[in-house]
Amino acid sequence: MSRKPGKDENARRLAEAAGASMYARDRAAQALGIALLAVRPGFARMRMTVRDDMVNGHDTCHGGLIFALADTAFAYACNSHNRNAVAQHCTITFVQPAQKGETLVAEAAEQSLDGRNGVYDTKVENQRGELVALFRGASRVIPGDVARNVRAGKAKKPS
Amino acid sequence: MSRKPGKDENARRLAEAAGASMYARDRAAQALGIALLAVRPGFARMRMTVRDDMVNGHDTCHGGLIFALADTAFAYACNSHNRNAVAQHCTITFVQPAQKGETLVAEAAEQSLDGRNGVYDTKVENQRGELVALFRGASRVIPGDVARNVRAGKAKKPS
Amino acid sequence: MSRKPGKDENARRLAEAAGASMYARDRAAQALGIALLAVRPGFARMRMTVRDDMVNGHDTCHGGLIFALADTAFAYACNSHNRNAVAQHCTITFVQPAQKGETLVAEAAEQSLDGRNGVYDTKVENQRGELVALFRGASRVIPGDVARNVRAGKAKKPS
Amino acid sequence: MSRKPGKDENARRLAEAAGASMYARDRAAQALGIALLAVRPGFARMRMTVRDDMVNGHDTCHGGLIFALADTAFAYACNSHNRNAVAQHCTITFVQPAQKGETLVAEAAEQSLDGRNGVYDTKVENQRGELVALFRGASRVIPGDVARNVRAGKAKKPS
Repeated sequence: MSRKPGKDENARRLAEAAGASMYARDRAAQALGIALLAVRPGFARMRMTVRDDMVNGHDTCHGGLIFALADTAFAYACNSHNRNAVAQHCTITFVQPAQKGETLVAEAAEQSLDGRNGVYDTKVENQRGELVALFRGASRVIPGDVARNVRAGKAKKPS
Repeated sequence: MSRKPGKDENARRLAEAAGASMYARDRAAQALGIALLAVRPGFARMRMTVRDDMVNGHDTCHGGLIFALADTAFAYACNSHNRNAVAQHCTITFVQPAQKGETLVAEAAEQSLDGRNGVYDTKVENQRGELVALFRGASRVIPGDVARNVRAGKAKKPS
Repeated sequence: MSRKPGKDENARRLAEAAGASMYARDRAAQALGIALLAVRPGFARMRMTVRDDMVNGHDTCHGGLIFALADTAFAYACNSHNRNAVAQHCTITFVQPAQKGETLVAEAAEQSLDGRNGVYDTKVENQRGELVALFRGASRVIPGDVARNVRAGKAKKPS
Repeated sequence: MSRKPGKDENARRLAEAAGASMYARDRAAQALGIALLAVRPGFARMRMTVRDDMVNGHDTCHGGLIFALADTAFAYACNSHNRNAVAQHCTITFVQPAQKGETLVAEAAEQSLDGRNGVYDTKVENQRGELVALFRGASRVIPGDVARNVRAGKAKKPS
C-alpha cells in the first residue's frame, strides 16, 4: 500500500541477485537436482524430483532429502534480503511419503523477521498438490552480504 | 541386570539383521556415502564425509545433508527392533558449521519407546569430537518387519 | 465450493459444542484466565491477560504461560471435529517478550489433518497486533468423542 | 580433571546465587507451586504437583503446565552461569499424561553452550520415575547478570 514501487522493485532485484549468487555456489542443491523456481523478498520456491538414488530402506524418498529440499527453500528465503543468514533450528513434520519419480515443490515464506532473527515456514507438496511435509526454520543474520556488488537500487553492471 | 543374556543376544542379532537389510536397500544413504558403523537395539552410529558436492552457498556443508546424516542414524536406531518404524517429527539445532573434507559421525540413541511411539536423540560431531548438530526424532511403528525371515532367537537360514 | 451449506453448518455446530464441553471441564484454562473467543472446524481463538502472578525472573510473561495459551488454542482447534485428540509434539519460537498487563490473543489454524494425525499452527499476538510467539503442534486422534450426545446434524436437546 | 576445585566451587556458588535471585522474582513459578530443588552450572531440578486447577478438558494435566515446569527448569539451567539468558525455541514431546495429584520432577541439563547459544534438554518424570515428557530448549545469552553483586570468587557481602 504505502510502499513505493521503487523500493519494492529494488527489494525484488536484490532477492533475485542474492538467489542467483547463492545458487551458483550451492553445489549441494545442484547435486540434488534442486531447481530454484522463484525468489522474492522473504520467499523462495524450489523443485526436486525424487531420483532412484534418493530412496531409503522403505523404498520411499529419504526423509533427509525431503528436509534438504525444504531447508534449501528456507535458506533462499532467509537470505533474500541479501544479508547473510544461517539456520539455527529447524523442525519438520512428515505428512505423507514421496515416491520415486515424484516431483516435489517447496515454498518457503517469511513469518517473522525481528532484528537478526527470522522464522520461515516451508510447505512441501507433490505434483498432485498433496502435502508431503511441513517445515519451520529459525534463522539468524550474520555479518556479510550474500551477493557482492549489489546494493538496493543500483546493481553493479558487469564490465 | 535381570535380563537374560540370551534375550540381549537375540535383540542384538535382530538389530544387526534389520540394519543390514535396510542398508542394502537404502540407496540414498549409499549415494551420500553414509556408512553404517554400528547398530544395536535402540542405537545406531553412522559416518559421512563432507564431499565437494555437499557444500551450500556459504561454502559449508549444506544443513540438509547434516540433517540427512542425523536422520539416517535415527532411522536405523528406531528400526533396530525389526519392526517397521517411520519418522513423524524431527528437530535439529545447528551448533557449528562443518567444512568440506570433514568427517562427521552421528550417534542416535533411544530416549523413549512407549507402545508404537519412540523418541531418539542424535548427536553429530566432527572428527575433532566437536558438536556440529543436535537432532531429535519422533517415530511411529507401522505394520511389517524390517528384515524378513528373521525372528528373535532363530534367524532363518538361507536355503 | 462443493460443500453443502448443511454440512458446514453441522461442522460448525459440532465445533462449538466440543469447545463448550471442553472449556467447562478445562480448569487449567479457567485458572489462567484464558477465554475462548471463537471455535470453528480446525480453528480456535483464545485470549489471556498477563497477570502479576504470570511473570518470570526477568519480569516478563513466563514463556511457559505463553506456551500454555498457544497450546490451549491448539487443543480446541484439534478437538473441534469432536473426536478426542491429544498433543504429541509441540514447538514454540519466542519472538518478543510480553509484559505485565498486556493482553495476548492466540489463533490456532489447521494446516493438515491426515487420518488421525493433525498439524496446527498458533500465532500469539499482543494487543498492538505484534507477534509474540509462533507455535506448531502435532496432534493424534484417540478413541472417544469430545462432547457426548452431539452428532452431526442432530444435537441432543437437553430434557 | 584439569579444573581447579576453586573454580568449580565458584561456579556452583554463582549458579546457586543466580537461581535464588531468579526464584525470588519468579512469581509465575511460585504461583504454579514449582519448587527449585537444585541448581548447578548448566543444570536445574524443579518439582510441581498437579493441582485440581491444572487439569484440562481431558481431565489430565494441561500440557501447557507440563511445558511450564520443563521450561522453568530449562530457564534456571541456562541462567545458572549468572549471565542473563532467554529462551528462543523450545520443543516438547508428550510421552504419557500426568494425573491430578501426581508429583512431577523436571531435570534440565546443558547439552551445548557455544558462545551465546545454548541447548538444554529437560526430562519430566512422575513420582514413579516414568517419563512424562521430553523437552529441548535453545537459549541465547543477552546483556546483564542474573544476580547482581555476585562475582566468581567474591560474592559481595551484604553490609
